[in-house]
Amino acid sequence: MHYGSEILSRTIDELMKLPGIGRKTAQRLAFYLLKSSQEDAVALANAIVELKEKVRFCVQCFNASENDLCTICRDVKREPALICVVEETNDLLAIEKTSEFHGLYHVLQGHLSPLDGIGPDDLRIRELMQRLEKTEVREMIIATNPNAEGEATALYLMKLVKPLGIKVTRIARGLPVGSDLEFSDEVTLSRALTGRQEM
Amino acid sequence: MHYGSEILSRTIDELMKLPGIGRKTAQRLAFYLLKSSQEDAVALANAIVELKEKVRFCVQCFNASENDLCTICRDVKREPALICVVEETNDLLAIEKTSEFHGLYHVLQGHLSPLDGIGPDDLRIRELMQRLEKTEVREMIIATNPNAEGEATALYLMKLVKPLGIKVTRIARGLPVGSDLEFSDEVTLSRALTGRQEM
Repeated sequence: MHYGSEILSRTIDELMKLPGIGRKTAQRLAFYLLKSSQEDAVALANAIVELKEKVRFCVQCFNASENDLCTICRDVKREPALICVVEETNDLLAIEKTSEFHGLYHVLQGHLSPLDGIGPDDLRIRELMQRLEKTEVREMIIATNPNAEGEATALYLMKLVKPLGIKVTRIARGLPVGSDLEFSDEVTLSRALTGRQEM
Repeated sequence: MHYGSEILSRTIDELMKLPGIGRKTAQRLAFYLLKSSQEDAVALANAIVELKEKVRFCVQCFNASENDLCTICRDVKREPALICVVEETNDLLAIEKTSEFHGLYHVLQGHLSPLDGIGPDDLRIRELMQRLEKTEVREMIIATNPNAEGEATALYLMKLVKPLGIKVTRIARGLPVGSDLEFSDEVTLSRALTGRQEM
């Protein structure tokens, strides 16, 4: 693709490496940056550099953190005997937004996916097991995604952790709140039926 | 929103300033950058800084360029008497991809939009008029978008340029190649009818 400028072309190529950004979007972003103020563009570039320099992963739960321990792991008001296992930091953020969970997290940084060559050693499972050995854990909530990979990962973890005598739970799968029974898919609906709870 | 890291939060805010990037996408991009290699992230940041430093607009046609004149304006094989007026550099790229046009361009850098307070003085119209006075132009093709703003801009330019004795044409509007008559909207279909050509 001929953009009339080597640098413009390179910027578009770099933007296209980002997930979910195709050529058209990368072009739009690059032209936006070209027209935007010098300060805005430099602020973005600096934020990216600083992000890589200063933000790493919490040594305990693998959430994003500027220190060895993340703000959640350092929070003394949180319950350390309750651990919620999620796939990614995004999932942790989604749960934090509910304000329903007051324990700690463990971010796996992915899910099992044999087809993509991602096995247990590629996730933070070894670190999770070491953590469960060191600390007294009452319950482990598995909050991996309710899709094929997430369910497989949940099953794998359950088999690994249950023998340690720790209570292992899985987030409920069923009909989304506010949805219509009529328009729900059959897998979700059958899940909602088998997972029914007494009122 | 509490991300557990001030820098992460700032990076997400900066990414959200980009067009079409909401909070969820900005989060996904930031977490991707966090996990990606140091080189990739720095390459992106450097490309953005260099883009702002070295890429500007061609003094003749306002296409992106690293020099005073862009590669198209400098190309002696292109026909200077044929000028294609487009709204944005993206549109120029789209036309270049067809390899059908061998003249020069004029990038307006926007379209007339009174509701957004964008009038003729906010576009590169004055520069276009100066250019038409200085050079011998045989035909001006108006290739603004076939929507309300693009049509208004085309009409405005036509009224301005036609008195100069220059042939002014508009790109054809009709049914997209490969589409179905049945599924086309009525405005497009009526355009296709009035714009019919003898075979």
